[in-house]
Amino acid sequence: MTRVDGRSDDELRPVSITRGFQKHPAGSVLVEFGDTKVLCAASVTEGVPRWRAGSGLGWVTAEYAMLPSATHTRSDRESIKGRVGGRTHEISRLIGRSLRTCIDLKALGENTIAIDCDVLQADGGTRTAAITGAYVALADAVTWLGAHGRLADPKPLSCQVAAVSVGVVDGRVRLDLPYSEDSRAEVDTNVVATDTGTLIEVQGTGEGATFTRRTLDAMLDSAMAGIRQLSKIQAAALAEPYPGELPGKP
Amino acid sequence: MTRVDGRSDDELRPVSITRGFQKHPAGSVLVEFGDTKVLCAASVTEGVPRWRAGSGLGWVTAEYAMLPSATHTRSDRESIKGRVGGRTHEISRLIGRSLRTCIDLKALGENTIAIDCDVLQADGGTRTAAITGAYVALADAVTWLGAHGRLADPKPLSCQVAAVSVGVVDGRVRLDLPYSEDSRAEVDTNVVATDTGTLIEVQGTGEGATFTRRTLDAMLDSAMAGIRQLSKIQAAALAEPYPGELPGKP
Amino acid sequence: MTRVDGRSDDELRPVSITRGFQKHPAGSVLVEFGDTKVLCAASVTEGVPRWRAGSGLGWVTAEYAMLPSATHTRSDRESIKGRVGGRTHEISRLIGRSLRTCIDLKALGENTIAIDCDVLQADGGTRTAAITGAYVALADAVTWLGAHGRLADPKPLSCQVAAVSVGVVDGRVRLDLPYSEDSRAEVDTNVVATDTGTLIEVQGTGEGATFTRRTLDAMLDSAMAGIRQLSKIQAAALAEPYPGELPGKP
Amino acid sequence: MTRVDGRSDDELRPVSITRGFQKHPAGSVLVEFGDTKVLCAASVTEGVPRWRAGSGLGWVTAEYAMLPSATHTRSDRESIKGRVGGRTHEISRLIGRSLRTCIDLKALGENTIAIDCDVLQADGGTRTAAITGAYVALADAVTWLGAHGRLADPKPLSCQVAAVSVGVVDGRVRLDLPYSEDSRAEVDTNVVATDTGTLIEVQGTGEGATFTRRTLDAMLDSAMAGIRQLSKIQAAALAEPYPGELPGKP
Amino acid sequence: MTRVDGRSDDELRPVSITRGFQKHPAGSVLVEFGDTKVLCAASVTEGVPRWRAGSGLGWVTAEYAMLPSATHTRSDRESIKGRVGGRTHEISRLIGRSLRTCIDLKALGENTIAIDCDVLQADGGTRTAAITGAYVALADAVTWLGAHGRLADPKPLSCQVAAVSVGVVDGRVRLDLPYSEDSRAEVDTNVVATDTGTLIEVQGTGEGATFTRRTLDAMLDSAMAGIRQLSKIQAAALAEPYPGELPGKP
Amino acid sequence: MTRVDGRSDDELRPVSITRGFQKHPAGSVLVEFGDTKVLCAASVTEGVPRWRAGSGLGWVTAEYAMLPSATHTRSDRESIKGRVGGRTHEISRLIGRSLRTCIDLKALGENTIAIDCDVLQADGGTRTAAITGAYVALADAVTWLGAHGRLADPKPLSCQVAAVSVGVVDGRVRLDLPYSEDSRAEVDTNVVATDTGTLIEVQGTGEGATFTRRTLDAMLDSAMAGIRQLSKIQAAALAEPYPGELPGKP
Repeated sequence: MTRVDGRSDDELRPVSITRGFQKHPAGSVLVEFGDTKVLCAASVTEGVPRWRAGSGLGWVTAEYAMLPSATHTRSDRESIKGRVGGRTHEISRLIGRSLRTCIDLKALGENTIAIDCDVLQADGGTRTAAITGAYVALADAVTWLGAHGRLADPKPLSCQVAAVSVGVVDGRVRLDLPYSEDSRAEVDTNVVATDTGTLIEVQGTGEGATFTRRTLDAMLDSAMAGIRQLSKIQAAALAEPYPGELPGKP
Repeated sequence: MTRVDGRSDDELRPVSITRGFQKHPAGSVLVEFGDTKVLCAASVTEGVPRWRAGSGLGWVTAEYAMLPSATHTRSDRESIKGRVGGRTHEISRLIGRSLRTCIDLKALGENTIAIDCDVLQADGGTRTAAITGAYVALADAVTWLGAHGRLADPKPLSCQVAAVSVGVVDGRVRLDLPYSEDSRAEVDTNVVATDTGTLIEVQGTGEGATFTRRTLDAMLDSAMAGIRQLSKIQAAALAEPYPGELPGKP
Repeated sequence: MTRVDGRSDDELRPVSITRGFQKHPAGSVLVEFGDTKVLCAASVTEGVPRWRAGSGLGWVTAEYAMLPSATHTRSDRESIKGRVGGRTHEISRLIGRSLRTCIDLKALGENTIAIDCDVLQADGGTRTAAITGAYVALADAVTWLGAHGRLADPKPLSCQVAAVSVGVVDGRVRLDLPYSEDSRAEVDTNVVATDTGTLIEVQGTGEGATFTRRTLDAMLDSAMAGIRQLSKIQAAALAEPYPGELPGKP
Repeated sequence: MTRVDGRSDDELRPVSITRGFQKHPAGSVLVEFGDTKVLCAASVTEGVPRWRAGSGLGWVTAEYAMLPSATHTRSDRESIKGRVGGRTHEISRLIGRSLRTCIDLKALGENTIAIDCDVLQADGGTRTAAITGAYVALADAVTWLGAHGRLADPKPLSCQVAAVSVGVVDGRVRLDLPYSEDSRAEVDTNVVATDTGTLIEVQGTGEGATFTRRTLDAMLDSAMAGIRQLSKIQAAALAEPYPGELPGKP
Repeated sequence: MTRVDGRSDDELRPVSITRGFQKHPAGSVLVEFGDTKVLCAASVTEGVPRWRAGSGLGWVTAEYAMLPSATHTRSDRESIKGRVGGRTHEISRLIGRSLRTCIDLKALGENTIAIDCDVLQADGGTRTAAITGAYVALADAVTWLGAHGRLADPKPLSCQVAAVSVGVVDGRVRLDLPYSEDSRAEVDTNVVATDTGTLIEVQGTGEGATFTRRTLDAMLDSAMAGIRQLSKIQAAALAEPYPGELPGKP
Repeated sequence: MTRVDGRSDDELRPVSITRGFQKHPAGSVLVEFGDTKVLCAASVTEGVPRWRAGSGLGWVTAEYAMLPSATHTRSDRESIKGRVGGRTHEISRLIGRSLRTCIDLKALGENTIAIDCDVLQADGGTRTAAITGAYVALADAVTWLGAHGRLADPKPLSCQVAAVSVGVVDGRVRLDLPYSEDSRAEVDTNVVATDTGTLIEVQGTGEGATFTRRTLDAMLDSAMAGIRQLSKIQAAALAEPYPGELPGKP
């Protein structure tokens, strides 16, 4: 039984990472996992939130949102509804927590990096694409801070962070689900991990079905292989020079 | 290195389940995991939310909250702040999703069961205690519906649901963390599973640290053993007669 | 014509006051007037709200709320609705105002005591039970502050405060109405008074009916007798030692 | 010891009632108690709120608000703050409850009368002035409904409703307190009553002081005398013809 | 084709400006354009908003609102809805912007003048009446500040500001539209200008129809003539002495 | 005195219109005016808002928003603040009003077209770019409706709509201001007009300065010339085939 887009079960969708998508933020990345497109911006602010002031530590925070026009059927704007939904909150917290794992907040100095992940087009896996792209935007923001002499220590990033979804569809473990698979998956798992193969977050969910330890193991095997590939794509993207202007750059 | 309360690493805190705590809801359970105390109520309403009307299916929903006085330092009341926080949303969704896995919504008929998990005292593991207690309240509400002849089918519950936390503290995998351990855990995992040993939800998180597959496996082993014990405590509690009045009950 | 629970017209329901119900707040009292159960917690914070800072005076504030599962039919959660209802506001203000009458805020020093009255089960008279229990929780918080050497003056409490409802049901003046009487009362009055028999607050309301001065007098006579009894029950409860740990306590 | 404005202790401020202040609502009254000026409008809508539809009963509701510029120091606008304060809620509920006592909602038919009491200038006693003026606006709205043949029964109003404040200032019981007295009153009582001398609502409050039954009696005596006068002023105002156009009116 | 109220196309409705309408604010003006009645209050506060502090500049801000009873059919209260509507926001911003054009904020010193325009009765042109009245209230507030020695410079006002509506109704350009004309106008234009004939704001809108440059020119000619008259009425009103008490005023 | 980007005073920035930017909405256009980039989506829903149901008329509505990362300094997310700002409201209303002028809502049938204008990058003139792009998205949505046989009448669009800003900078009238000019403009005017040269909306504003009729005329001349060019660019973009799939399209 083949997948609707012809991929094998353990194959990622085409992934693309475009740095320098916007001119204002220190890091701005358009990440695409197939038809899922997320704009990840990393904006630098001097200082930290009040509850952290004077600690000598920096802060990384994240907000996730969808454009109303990103989904198959238009979704209502959360600003108009006057409250942020539970799913939005949950994903925002996941992105922030995941990125903070790879950064030494002391080395960052008393700077705040605000990550905005805005989904321009949704086709499944928006949160995992967001984390994967946000890491690259964060790396660019760190480069920008370093070039402006504002880091307390030159290398705040200790590892790369990437994420992928994996699930059980039609009884088979499949990697990187598009919406058409995600919407009928029996089990849905999101894995966030580092380029060295250690785990940051595992969220396995069976709504309407339970799953065995053996299935969980198979999903984790597939996800970790996918994250190894994503880490290479991130590294390749970051091997190019910083896309904007930096002091001292010719 | 022993734990602060003298338990061994794979030992649960004393668990108690008191049914019939309140007189109004069809199910009302006070669940205690050590000093963590959660009041779980299951209220029955005829009919279902508008988006589900006419489907012939029932609905189970859940809301989690903390009393301001439940925590070490008093926390602000979300009704006064005018918005529900991200953590509250996240846990409410987790409880609802977990309980829906074990219930046949068709058998439930067009009834809604609203689960309210209000934390009276917090000492770590409030969400896992809530799920474990909420299952018992749900079972009582189902009994009440059956006794009133309002189920479409006599046995809507297909399995028991329980949950426990497990984490890495001082480099050791430990079960059912109290606040003093939870607050300094390197990895924190919540597992929801059935009495037959299948998984419903796995949420493993390393904030500030990553973890290996081997550690994840050790945590899952410990959690599954804990859930086996919790399932037995649930079953023992439910072996007693329904705590309130039922039609035809002498 | 007798009352549904067999009481005489001027008889209180069984009243019970349990101190030390929760371990975190300085004062925590479960008060029961028959089936009405309210958890009253008094949490101490150093300092006072900004508008009062530097005045040398302390502050006592109160918030009242109902668990959704406390009422006969489940009520919606105010945090989800995003706003606190008029009745909730009104009762919160009444509790705070009543308790501030009996405390010398100068003697309290620049400390804030936040009273949380959360109704676990409602059967009429929740606001009067809340005030009666909250006084005991307040007294425990004052004891705690004294034992920690944080009072500006050793005796901030000048009197006891208790409250009771009284109404006209079936043409008769009756004390301490349960929900079944309260919901069909022609006149409903709440009285807050001290243990020395002076008044703090009188709120007499006829919705759908008016009442004479003579009826008001009869209601006040009954309420004052009830409050004398409640004051004795409070005093008896407070005659026991402080339920938690205090410095210097063996 | 005389009062700041030269009145005797049991004397009302100059009271004026102007009907037909606005042209759109069926009833529109500007009521003045000295420098306190409240615009009371009674707007008629066909039908009743959803929870009451089909009952054959009408509905009367009230909203109270202050213009930001009405108070000595400008107060923030509640629409901008995004929530209605506790005091506003409390007074709105009091006005609605008081007016519903004097009207037969069955005779009103399935019509809603919305009372808006907007304080144009505040100098103490805004809620009692509001009730006194709102009754006159309500009476005009009833006249309007009758003239348009929309009443189920010709005489829905069973009595007049008026209200006045009374308090203890400088140790003396004083009627109809202006802001300068109200702000330093030891006891503050609001009384709502009918033109036949029966009570609708009594709210006596001692913030920072308690009071005896004897003081309460003296306050009630003074208030009832004041309300007798206010009832006459209302009757005199209503003796004039309806200020707007009515069908069949020449 | 004559207008419903007998005016010629280029004629204003009767305009009246009453200063000193309220006693608390430094400026308080009731402005009437025919049946449109707006209460414009200018309240003085020492200091400026935080983002402006220390700049040496003052600030003028404005809020516009309608009483629920002001309109033909009662409108819902924005404080109850919990949010301010788009139209309200838009007009508030227009009033503030227009008034700031005529005042030297440096000369004002670090004072804030808050303008509140509350519509008591609406019959078209509420925003233009509000601006015209608000200017007079602002002038009174400036006089008050000067008399209290709180201006940085004696003459902060550089010109008068007034506003009028003009539109195309029944194919004719008409000045100062009442509601009955406004509601069926093909083009609706609001013009804010100074007493010296320069423009501050032009807002021309065709909903459901477009308009030519020639029509725009005709509308501007009519509006400018109207504003010349309004400026004279403002000047005449301000020629009277300040309506309240001022230091040193006999 | 030349402009910072070398343009002459009456020259537009490079304008580009990309249709089919997103795959879900019926119309999706990325419009660029220099560095200002706005994503304009037109989503079709069957039916109309409740207040319009059964009228036989369609509806067109618009919402404008900025990504937090679109501006020079990151701006707070309105969904997090829980309310939409005045400027956002104002622009949303302007876009909706402008587009409704060019469409016959009867011909549209009972369909709703929701226009979302999300600013991806801001450099002045975001509202005028939004209107210009939104017209093209609207035209695509109309094509889509026609191809699906859902129009009541085949040609609902009666004209094209485009918009441009013009202002006085350094004493000179300049077209299509980027942020660096906009932020120091003495007068700022936005003009919305049709391809046949009639006006839809003129909004001329002098904050901190007034302007003469002669200046207004010069600004309108420049704007109308700019809109003629924009109309040609729109027409050229729409001359290409519909970018997505349509029934019956090979």
